[in-house]
Amino acid sequence: MRTLNYALLLMVTASGLLGAQQPMASPRAEIEAFNKAFDNATRHMDNAATLALWEDDGISLLPSTKPMVGKKAIAGFMDAVMKDIAGGRMEKFENECHDIEVSGVWASEWCLEHQIVQLPGDKRFDGWGKMLLVLHRGADGKWRIKREMWNQANGPEATGH
Amino acid sequence: MRTLNYALLLMVTASGLLGAQQPMASPRAEIEAFNKAFDNATRHMDNAATLALWEDDGISLLPSTKPMVGKKAIAGFMDAVMKDIAGGRMEKFENECHDIEVSGVWASEWCLEHQIVQLPGDKRFDGWGKMLLVLHRGADGKWRIKREMWNQANGPEATGH
Repeated sequence: MRTLNYALLLMVTASGLLGAQQPMASPRAEIEAFNKAFDNATRHMDNAATLALWEDDGISLLPSTKPMVGKKAIAGFMDAVMKDIAGGRMEKFENECHDIEVSGVWASEWCLEHQIVQLPGDKRFDGWGKMLLVLHRGADGKWRIKREMWNQANGPEATGH
Repeated sequence: MRTLNYALLLMVTASGLLGAQQPMASPRAEIEAFNKAFDNATRHMDNAATLALWEDDGISLLPSTKPMVGKKAIAGFMDAVMKDIAGGRMEKFENECHDIEVSGVWASEWCLEHQIVQLPGDKRFDGWGKMLLVLHRGADGKWRIKREMWNQANGPEATGH
C-alpha cells in the first residue's frame, strides 16, 4: 500500500512539474502573446524584433506598393522607412486585434491600430490603420506572420462588433 | 452466395453513384472554383452573386472605410456604389490569386486585380488592387469569404514570385 501511495504521489508530482514546465497555452493565448510582442516591437521601432515575428517567406501587402515577398524584402523596406524618418520616435502605438480564428498551424485576425510618430523638425504623424493578418505556427511552436495587409482607417471607428 | 454477390454489387453501384454525385475535388480545386465564381460575379457587377460568396458574418476591410461587418453592411455598401456609378459597366476584370493555403475549413490567398469600368459621361476608371482573403468552408461544403482586405496596387507589378 505504501508503495502504491508513493507511486501515485510521484505521478502527481511529476504531472505537476510537467504542468509547470509546459503550461498548455491555448492557441488563442499564444496569439495574444504574439500580438503583445508585435505591439512592443512596433512601439520601440525595433526592426530586428519585428522581423523575428515574420516567417521567412512572409508577404507584406502595403498600399500602392509592390507585394513584398520574404524577410529580405521586408527588412529592406523597414530600413528604408527608418532612413526616411531618421530621428523619429514612436510616441504612441495602440493596436486592437479582433476575431482570432485558429485551424491547426494557421490562424487569422484583423486589427485596428493607431500610431503617433514624432518626426524630426517638430513634425508629427498621427495615423490610424487596419490590418488583416494570417499567422503560421512554426515547427518551434512560435506563431509568425505569413501574410499581412494594411490600409488606412479614419479613426477609432465603431466596428458594430 | 447469390445474395452476397447482389449485396456487393449494390455496394459498388451505390459507391459509384455517390462518386458521380460528389466528385472528390481537392480543397485547392474548390477554391479555384470559388475564385472563378468571384471573378464572374465581379465582372458582371452582379451584387447578388457576389453576396452569395460571403459568410453571414464576413468582414470587409476597405481603405478609409469603417470595417463592414456582416452581409447586410456589405450589401448596403455595394448598393451605394452601384447607385454612385449608375449606368457604369465593367469593361474588364482580371484577378490573379496566389498561394492558396488550406487548413481544415479555413483557407487564405492573396490576389492582384485589375478593373476597367466604363462610367457615365464617357468617363473611365482603370485601377489595380491587391486583396487578402480568408475563406471559410460552410457546413454545405461551400467556400465563402470570411475576411477581405483590399488596397491599391500600382499596376501589373512583378511579385518576385
